[in-house]
Amino acid sequence: MSKGKFIVLEGVEGVGKSKQAGFLKENLARRGIQAIVTREPGGAPLGEKLRELILDPQYNEDAITELFMYSASRRAHLNEIVLPALNSGKIVICDRFIYSTVAYQGYGRGLDVDFIRSVNAKTIEPTEVDLALFLDLSPRDGFKRKGGADGGDRLERENIEFFDRVYKGFCDMADGGELVRIDASGAKEQTATLIMNEVDKIL
Amino acid sequence: MSKGKFIVLEGVEGVGKSKQAGFLKENLARRGIQAIVTREPGGAPLGEKLRELILDPQYNEDAITELFMYSASRRAHLNEIVLPALNSGKIVICDRFIYSTVAYQGYGRGLDVDFIRSVNAKTIEPTEVDLALFLDLSPRDGFKRKGGADGGDRLERENIEFFDRVYKGFCDMADGGELVRIDASGAKEQTATLIMNEVDKIL
Repeated sequence: MSKGKFIVLEGVEGVGKSKQAGFLKENLARRGIQAIVTREPGGAPLGEKLRELILDPQYNEDAITELFMYSASRRAHLNEIVLPALNSGKIVICDRFIYSTVAYQGYGRGLDVDFIRSVNAKTIEPTEVDLALFLDLSPRDGFKRKGGADGGDRLERENIEFFDRVYKGFCDMADGGELVRIDASGAKEQTATLIMNEVDKIL
Repeated sequence: MSKGKFIVLEGVEGVGKSKQAGFLKENLARRGIQAIVTREPGGAPLGEKLRELILDPQYNEDAITELFMYSASRRAHLNEIVLPALNSGKIVICDRFIYSTVAYQGYGRGLDVDFIRSVNAKTIEPTEVDLALFLDLSPRDGFKRKGGADGGDRLERENIEFFDRVYKGFCDMADGGELVRIDASGAKEQTATLIMNEVDKIL
């Protein structure tokens, strides 16, 4: 059995990554291609424990501590969830990955982007991302689509200037060729078609 | 009040780091100099939680995941324990620090040493170590002194070849000038005097 493909969906809040991940899985299933949808920590036992600590407001860790905890959680998720699925020939559709760390911790929180990139590279070694898509919608349009920030977790309580910086991070990665830009401003069926067109190129 | 000094004691198991840390604290107290002795996670709330996960045998994390978890725990210990003490003018005596990570995870477990160094540098930023001492005793002599491996935690159940590599790591760092070598093969009072001589140079 051949190795599966690792597809990542990135973008700001409200762009519809989870919905599009579900559409993509269904579109693949219609062709008889097995896929799983996951997002960190995705049920990885160690990854879940680490994520609980990151989100626990009693531990007000700084950006560097947070980076290492996210990276440990990410690697646990890779080892426990992603790699077994890839090795069994499945497509893995991951809702956010290393690019979010560059955008949120780097552009958003101001942590050294080169350092984040070196940590990201080591974190996923030797796994490779086959396709990384940036669902492009501005933070303002994302919040509008979502019906406003719901304050559900710490990131969502940050302010709009923060999300503008995060958005610039994704745009820079798309401009630099790391992410494939998908216009996500149209109807969700349109976006799903654009995504499927890109996925077709790697199948 | 002037800022305190950050002193680190390194070396293999059984060399007597904890004992020497205690002696140093007492010697300083006799001169009216306040010091604290700590070792990671040292009661730092987040650091302790992370260390529990690292040592929990149900999470069999790989070397890279472990590196990130140790680094997060280290930074929490720095922020929560070390920096407040340094800022109140105390001497902080730390039993193991970043050099152990180079020796154990790098030389011992085979993780890329340059990458570990870059993670270490970011982990402690902007804190600086004022004096890092390598209590030099071979692993065999260390185990003999300790009465043999007691199997108390995972590291101590590793084999002697592992500890030989770790020891080489410390020796290389001493040869490169990162660590100050202290002959720890003599009586503990002798070692304490050698340590105090080095500490005197930075007071």
